[in-house]
Amino acid sequence: MWTSGGEKKNLMNDALTDLSRLSLNQATTQHCSVREAAAGCVRAGIPFIGLWRDKVAATGLRESARIVRDAGLHVSSLCRGGWFPAATAAERLAHIDDNRRAIDEASELGTDLLVLVCGPASDRDIDAARAQVAEGIAAIAPYAAERGVRLGIEPLHPMFAGDRSVIVTLAEANQLAAQFSPEQVGVVIDVYHVWWDPDVYHQIALAADRIFGFHVNDWLAPPPDILKGRGMMGDGVIELRRLRHAVEAAGYTGPIEVEIFNQDLWDRLGDEILDLMCSRYLNHV
Amino acid sequence: MWTSGGEKKNLMNDALTDLSRLSLNQATTQHCSVREAAAGCVRAGIPFIGLWRDKVAATGLRESARIVRDAGLHVSSLCRGGWFPAATAAERLAHIDDNRRAIDEASELGTDLLVLVCGPASDRDIDAARAQVAEGIAAIAPYAAERGVRLGIEPLHPMFAGDRSVIVTLAEANQLAAQFSPEQVGVVIDVYHVWWDPDVYHQIALAADRIFGFHVNDWLAPPPDILKGRGMMGDGVIELRRLRHAVEAAGYTGPIEVEIFNQDLWDRLGDEILDLMCSRYLNHV
Repeated sequence: MWTSGGEKKNLMNDALTDLSRLSLNQATTQHCSVREAAAGCVRAGIPFIGLWRDKVAATGLRESARIVRDAGLHVSSLCRGGWFPAATAAERLAHIDDNRRAIDEASELGTDLLVLVCGPASDRDIDAARAQVAEGIAAIAPYAAERGVRLGIEPLHPMFAGDRSVIVTLAEANQLAAQFSPEQVGVVIDVYHVWWDPDVYHQIALAADRIFGFHVNDWLAPPPDILKGRGMMGDGVIELRRLRHAVEAAGYTGPIEVEIFNQDLWDRLGDEILDLMCSRYLNHV
Repeated sequence: MWTSGGEKKNLMNDALTDLSRLSLNQATTQHCSVREAAAGCVRAGIPFIGLWRDKVAATGLRESARIVRDAGLHVSSLCRGGWFPAATAAERLAHIDDNRRAIDEASELGTDLLVLVCGPASDRDIDAARAQVAEGIAAIAPYAAERGVRLGIEPLHPMFAGDRSVIVTLAEANQLAAQFSPEQVGVVIDVYHVWWDPDVYHQIALAADRIFGFHVNDWLAPPPDILKGRGMMGDGVIELRRLRHAVEAAGYTGPIEVEIFNQDLWDRLGDEILDLMCSRYLNHV
């Protein structure tokens, strides 16, 4: 945490000077195929791409792997595994099988990171759902380790606690990850999900060598939509540079994924989105 | 917290048996005047009402006080003071003046509780805004004490951090309140704002004699709207009874306000809303 105004100001001025860490998370160009997104990254000079399973499936797993490899792109992560809680043991086992498939896909795509969105409770018992998340991660961790894939727990914003993830704070994600080896299970920090948290800088410091990914975007005030209302960097109220410096101070120097769910953005042309994203990345992150 | 399944089950069965603690927060009947809401409470057998300043202003302060007194209702709270942060010292002083007027109104209306919604940052500096909230409360606390009005800090859901309140966890509200006398400054716990928090039961226990109010409603999954998408008790995923038992175990036995911002509900007749609210209160809270 910044303890003096002077220190804070100096660090605030420390902008990124090139795109060498930038990654396009495919959610940002929702209507582009793997091929279109990869070609756009090459044109824009973006070296990383974060893939989504549904888009990979639409193109085909091997073909997607070939496209990104031939384009010279590095795959920063695959979204997403998780979704562990369910009403019955049979359903929970089916979810674990699906996570194992996601791990295989990550390995085939050449990324060592599977992002986990942990899932909502199947009823009103949020404690039980949280326990099911821990059990689910324990069930897939050895399988992931054998395939060289790390699991990144992404705490979601508390407004998704009812329908997407019972893991809603970085503190909770850190505590979950701490039950496993730091080479195997860590956290993915998305500014959108954690910026509001009075404890966020402390928890980023605690996460240290378990930070496996860092996602940027912005929080519009008020958000125009719960799911599809995220902002482009610079359009909202998040202290993006301060958060980036905090994850760097904690030791993370890996790719920075831009992940924006926003209908207005999706309605634009892919190359326009990428150009805007690159300039906002340099000016605001 | 409940440590065994058996204990949890028994407490879960401990329903409210009458309406003696029920309060209609006026936000639930958004289109009713003070007079209409008060008459509805009398018909429905609801002994408390939580008033809003805009509706009181529309009816007139003295007239509103007379209406609720003549109806035999107790005013459980006045919503709302707060909104402390601002870009300039002059604006912050104007907000403090407005809070003093709210304290006077609470006193005139016969309630000893002013609910504080603390306000958003005026820019991206959330830490500075949080400090301004603490300064604002310190500036009005003596004035409130002289008039027998307590200040209840209501932490809002983190999805309102950008436009309504930088105070978004019960932990933060507890820490703020702890800077003042427990007779003067406490917290108002609304299940909608805190249910997602892995630390909520611990923080409720810590709040103890500083719990000044308890609000119920429900979290629809997913919420149909950010501001006007709250659910009627029983329609969502919140463990309402468990939370009520927790605030009671912490020592709170005061009014339970039903506060629901929901356009579909608002479109119904006032008496229908109150009848539904009473039955859901007995069956789910």
